[in-house]
Amino acid sequence: MIDDATTTTCVRAAAVVWGPGEPLVIEEVEVAPPARMEVRVKVLFTSICHTDLSAWKGENELQRKFPRILGHEAAGVVESVGEGVDDLAAGDHVVPVFAGECGACAYCESGKTNLCKTYRVDPFKSTMVTDGGTRFTVVDRSSGERRPVYHFLNTSTFVEYTVIDAACAVKINPRAPLQKMCLLSCGLSTGLGAAWNAANVSKGTTVAIFGLGAIGLAVAEGARLRGASRIIGVDVNPGKFSKGKEMGITDFINSKASCKPVHEVIREMTDGGVDYSFECTGINDVLREAFVSTHDGWGLTVVLGIHATPRMLPLHPMELFDGRRVTGCVFGDFKAKSQLPQLVDKCLQGEVKINFDGFITHEMPFEDINKAFQLLEEGKSLRCLLHF
Amino acid sequence: MIDDATTTTCVRAAAVVWGPGEPLVIEEVEVAPPARMEVRVKVLFTSICHTDLSAWKGENELQRKFPRILGHEAAGVVESVGEGVDDLAAGDHVVPVFAGECGACAYCESGKTNLCKTYRVDPFKSTMVTDGGTRFTVVDRSSGERRPVYHFLNTSTFVEYTVIDAACAVKINPRAPLQKMCLLSCGLSTGLGAAWNAANVSKGTTVAIFGLGAIGLAVAEGARLRGASRIIGVDVNPGKFSKGKEMGITDFINSKASCKPVHEVIREMTDGGVDYSFECTGINDVLREAFVSTHDGWGLTVVLGIHATPRMLPLHPMELFDGRRVTGCVFGDFKAKSQLPQLVDKCLQGEVKINFDGFITHEMPFEDINKAFQLLEEGKSLRCLLHF
Ligand SMILES: [Zn+2]
Ligand SMILES: [Zn+2]
Ligand SMILES: [Zn+2]
Ligand SMILES: [Zn+2]
Repeated sequence: MIDDATTTTCVRAAAVVWGPGEPLVIEEVEVAPPARMEVRVKVLFTSICHTDLSAWKGENELQRKFPRILGHEAAGVVESVGEGVDDLAAGDHVVPVFAGECGACAYCESGKTNLCKTYRVDPFKSTMVTDGGTRFTVVDRSSGERRPVYHFLNTSTFVEYTVIDAACAVKINPRAPLQKMCLLSCGLSTGLGAAWNAANVSKGTTVAIFGLGAIGLAVAEGARLRGASRIIGVDVNPGKFSKGKEMGITDFINSKASCKPVHEVIREMTDGGVDYSFECTGINDVLREAFVSTHDGWGLTVVLGIHATPRMLPLHPMELFDGRRVTGCVFGDFKAKSQLPQLVDKCLQGEVKINFDGFITHEMPFEDINKAFQLLEEGKSLRCLLHF
Repeated sequence: MIDDATTTTCVRAAAVVWGPGEPLVIEEVEVAPPARMEVRVKVLFTSICHTDLSAWKGENELQRKFPRILGHEAAGVVESVGEGVDDLAAGDHVVPVFAGECGACAYCESGKTNLCKTYRVDPFKSTMVTDGGTRFTVVDRSSGERRPVYHFLNTSTFVEYTVIDAACAVKINPRAPLQKMCLLSCGLSTGLGAAWNAANVSKGTTVAIFGLGAIGLAVAEGARLRGASRIIGVDVNPGKFSKGKEMGITDFINSKASCKPVHEVIREMTDGGVDYSFECTGINDVLREAFVSTHDGWGLTVVLGIHATPRMLPLHPMELFDGRRVTGCVFGDFKAKSQLPQLVDKCLQGEVKINFDGFITHEMPFEDINKAFQLLEEGKSLRCLLHF
């Protein structure tokens, strides 16, 4: 908030989490210049996703690294680049992504996966690849000590300036409105890509979506844009149905109010089952319902939810012989740096008409981030856009 | 054995199972003429597969229907056709298949599955679709009573003349040698198709096969014909390795003798895992080894073994996010009547060079069927061809 952006250390405002579930504190944090193959990004917009919520609460013990800067959905402008970075320059508009793409490893060179050897998402990673260090430092107000601040999901976007690997910065057309592009940083790409890449939903097919948060609605958006004839939304909260309808969902099932198992209802509605189902809740029993809701012979279930349970897949090996399949999907199977820029261009040309605005239910200044956390936790927002 | 083949009932020799695990008895059985949409087939060759063994032993209670005529791998000639059959005529060379194809249901019309609505395999089915009756009758020697003899897997081939649904009779080029074509009736098609259709093994890829019976070796044959660079065979019985080598397997792992988990050995051998693994044992823990033996990002495990266990899939939902996939496969995903005739033609033209002879390890007259059962049970034969 004091220094100008330079390639030396600068001091910027960040929302720091000091301990599990503690309110985020806006602190002045030293942001180091980008090291080799890194970039420093001026974040202009950021939003909150469920993965931030669960890391904030420290739901998984192994993820408890504090103090930490969370946030992984954002859009901004490159401020400076480290040594060796040749595909990005100061002034480039970028979207940070947790699913990086180095472009050179066996995975990146394979056409079959978007999991980069080095920069794939790792929920337990909290430091930079280059040297195992952090690029953030904060002075602990109680002890007066200088402490490193941990990174999160290859991104850490709840800060005015962040440092990320060049492999995790997607350069997009500067004409694209950054406040919308922010959504492509995680949730929207994940859902759209699940429908487009993982399932390859085609015109006239049927779809069931379990869990109508932002990811589920992004799947609906992907299915709608592909011309699915029926998009069935399933949720325990009927409050989500009006928004869902606005976003193109054609039928709703309140799984709490249904006296029959949901898969029976869906099979009756669709003459044997949907072509594709999407599991966006992270609940194992829901995964089973999603699986058996698809049509035998060709049904495909795409798993998007984070299953923190120790329970194994609730499917019997012999059930695979009925021709139903199940697959996981990370970041919508998009190769972020290779594919997102084209998607952005198609949006600008009007070739792909994504309803970005439908997902932005709230906007507020960055300083109100705790309010934004609360809205998401209470299921009141899809995406709350924070402005710096 | 007395009547000439006519469209009236005839009496023919059959190997009848009277109770679980009891030696098969060669009986004279009345074979009714084919009803509507059925054909009567003079069986010339038949062979035994593990599914016959398990039904013979009555391993699954629900499958215990006696007296019964087992057998589902065969080749023969159509003797007569029932009303409504217009794609088959007396004299046609046919291969019976347990995975029938009516050609008209939503499944048969879909390009995504080979599971026919009516004629898919059903291990609990023991009568004909048309009228729920049987086409075989036998006189019980102890009681003197006439008793219906149950059918098996849409086929029942351990009999001189059998009656099957036209949907389960694949007409093939009459120039093809029936004693070899017999193998396409189950095992060989299942394994070849698993490699070609379910996995789509391509040139230069790596493959691991768990269980080196006839199905496993048929997978190897499919992978070899597609130009796989490495075909790793895994079995507890090192006696199977010399045959495997002859059939194109390049590396062997004796899973009983290995001090490391098999998947670790395979990952070391293949720089991270094979592209495709095939589970041909029906053992749940082997399925897990097969799954984790594949390369993350793109590995595919094809399940072929019959898993009689009540245990669910030994995979965690989050493991799907590593990009490994698992799929079931029935009859090699072949649409039998649409696709096998072309495969037979390609074999005749020398375009596809399947090593049929490598699978036929024994031949004997039909009457010695009990000996053939024993050979298979002791793991001494791949396929024993029975001649009528
Ligand atoms: Zn997210
Ligand atoms: Zn890479
Ligand atoms: Zn068989
Ligand atoms: Zn059919």
